[in-house]
Amino acid sequence: MEDIKNPYSLNSKAVAEATKYWLHKRGVTLEEIAELVLFLQQKYYPNLTIEECVHNVEMVLSKREVQNAVLTGIQLDVLAEEGKLFTPLQDMIENDESLYGVDEILAFSIVNVYGSIGFTNYGYVDKLKPGVLERLNDKTTGQIHTYLDDIVGAVAAAASSRIAHRKQAEREQELGLPHAPEDTEEAARKLAAEDGLE
Amino acid sequence: MEDIKNPYSLNSKAVAEATKYWLHKRGVTLEEIAELVLFLQQKYYPNLTIEECVHNVEMVLSKREVQNAVLTGIQLDVLAEEGKLFTPLQDMIENDESLYGVDEILAFSIVNVYGSIGFTNYGYVDKLKPGVLERLNDKTTGQIHTYLDDIVGAVAAAASSRIAHRKQAEREQELGLPHAPEDTEEAARKLAAEDGLE
Amino acid sequence: MEDIKNPYSLNSKAVAEATKYWLHKRGVTLEEIAELVLFLQQKYYPNLTIEECVHNVEMVLSKREVQNAVLTGIQLDVLAEEGKLFTPLQDMIENDESLYGVDEILAFSIVNVYGSIGFTNYGYVDKLKPGVLERLNDKTTGQIHTYLDDIVGAVAAAASSRIAHRKQAEREQELGLPHAPEDTEEAARKLAAEDGLE
Amino acid sequence: MEDIKNPYSLNSKAVAEATKYWLHKRGVTLEEIAELVLFLQQKYYPNLTIEECVHNVEMVLSKREVQNAVLTGIQLDVLAEEGKLFTPLQDMIENDESLYGVDEILAFSIVNVYGSIGFTNYGYVDKLKPGVLERLNDKTTGQIHTYLDDIVGAVAAAASSRIAHRKQAEREQELGLPHAPEDTEEAARKLAAEDGLE
Repeated sequence: MEDIKNPYSLNSKAVAEATKYWLHKRGVTLEEIAELVLFLQQKYYPNLTIEECVHNVEMVLSKREVQNAVLTGIQLDVLAEEGKLFTPLQDMIENDESLYGVDEILAFSIVNVYGSIGFTNYGYVDKLKPGVLERLNDKTTGQIHTYLDDIVGAVAAAASSRIAHRKQAEREQELGLPHAPEDTEEAARKLAAEDGLE
Repeated sequence: MEDIKNPYSLNSKAVAEATKYWLHKRGVTLEEIAELVLFLQQKYYPNLTIEECVHNVEMVLSKREVQNAVLTGIQLDVLAEEGKLFTPLQDMIENDESLYGVDEILAFSIVNVYGSIGFTNYGYVDKLKPGVLERLNDKTTGQIHTYLDDIVGAVAAAASSRIAHRKQAEREQELGLPHAPEDTEEAARKLAAEDGLE
Repeated sequence: MEDIKNPYSLNSKAVAEATKYWLHKRGVTLEEIAELVLFLQQKYYPNLTIEECVHNVEMVLSKREVQNAVLTGIQLDVLAEEGKLFTPLQDMIENDESLYGVDEILAFSIVNVYGSIGFTNYGYVDKLKPGVLERLNDKTTGQIHTYLDDIVGAVAAAASSRIAHRKQAEREQELGLPHAPEDTEEAARKLAAEDGLE
Repeated sequence: MEDIKNPYSLNSKAVAEATKYWLHKRGVTLEEIAELVLFLQQKYYPNLTIEECVHNVEMVLSKREVQNAVLTGIQLDVLAEEGKLFTPLQDMIENDESLYGVDEILAFSIVNVYGSIGFTNYGYVDKLKPGVLERLNDKTTGQIHTYLDDIVGAVAAAASSRIAHRKQAEREQELGLPHAPEDTEEAARKLAAEDGLE
């Protein structure tokens, strides 16, 4: 009957599930992010399917580093929507202040995990605001997505980088060229072969 | 009886003052940050004074980019202390989870503004935790400084970079060597000469 | 009569001048970079002039951090053009390999100095390749600008961030609003007032 | 007798092998990097073996992003050693100029791939210069390792981050706790089980 608090330890499954839950609750589907990926990559890979894009978005979202950024950004959006941040941070996030760039900083930490080739794609979709990004930027809804729109663009850019690395691997294998697998890539390929996934 | 809301515009003075206010309220003085700077730089510049360090810390804190990171980080610490974040983000920030690195991401955005030569200093103080950083890391107080300790180390590292750039300028001028001033440096020097500051 | 080598010390003027020299030698004018800035910023500041853009590009190029990245990038381009890099780095830079992102890494270090609000502008021009960037990407000339095109886009993005910060300062001053000057801004303003520059 | 050049395409195996070759040729062994990892991580994981550290260093070095940074950095060191860079870049790299931070920029791109938790470890070893880093910093040999010392520290920091993520996964599995695998982790685990490696 004691009130002994369990010592803390990270529950990675809870973090992964919260990431999916909050993206969904804030109105963003994996398919919408995948459409941004297709928008960015289909000119380079004409046969790229939306299913492949969804799979790559899921893989990006499985990264702890990405989950941390998504959860922190959405948390700040939600608190801003509820008016619970202190002044003047509340005003800056509520109004998506153009000199406030912490949202870009968090977004960039997502892009970085899949390497520097994603920098350009991130900036491009963040400026053009296609698809879901246009909706997230609609300031008439009362919802605040100062962080989420950048985060969604960053996940799409990261998934694009992931695809570029995979396509290189596929190409070398199909042509029978020498190939040096990246970290855990060989392993993933074996599993995918068993599952018929990739 | 109208409900006309003033259109938003950034109030830069309010942001600057909030930054000082919240650092003070969370128990960090400019002198303590300056001591970290002295710790990092005195072996390179034996004549460096604590007053110069304080001045450089103030200049770093005058940057909008830095203020945004400081305010966002402290806000997350305060909300975690009040138990107001959603699970599992609450647990991760409350416990300074080692696989949660958004605090480092924010800190790094501060270091970056004064260039890459600050990277090493940041990592060094963040690991050693001298002075004020040791106090901020004391987990027995009930206070949560998951973000603030990294931010304070980052401000000290940025101030160290600022000093290194200034000392090069001073050196060239004293020796009568050709010198190319950096962005606004010439201007700052003129003003400082009038004020007798630098 | 000895062959005593002077001890090394940085010659900041030589670094600044080499930066201008090499940009010019590689065929890029400040006006062309300024046009990218105007392209990025004129919808936000309709009265922005090309002269202001040139001034901001010059200020960005006065930063040591920026000069280092420009010189290093151009050096690698030149060596690749001369075929003097080792294999397979020679091939990757010569062919602007899409999985080689060190050029983006260097470019990004330029953007970072003026803060996170430049991330988006960098990615946008790097993708669209307007003006001078189109010429630098022409692969039929025998010239190699794998680094330079990213660097030029980054300088333009950094100058855009600089303008955004300055315009906020100007706006607050014109409206008589409270204003907190950023690092050396006050000083720069005084000097500019004397010079009638800004 | 034709002079038809094959169209370029990345040869990933050649890039991976050149990375190993050049590290070896510049006098750095994987074991030495692994010792830095052990230095950084053994207080957190007392049972960590040098073999595990070597394995993690190899995995870090299998990443294309890492290989690109390693090759570019070593290339610049070698050219500086041969006196083939233009002035004043030659002087800055030859003398490991303290205001020249492009070496840190490249190193940081390595750390970033394994996430923000490596920032601190990178700065720490880069300042302390234990083991192999002390040798690389010896300025009396005529060799120039301005880039390589930072790169080696970055690879060690990245490997440390990789270990931290893996240890969390192992811990959750051993305790029968719920676990959410990261990108390709599940696959890697299966393969490792077959191979008896991890």
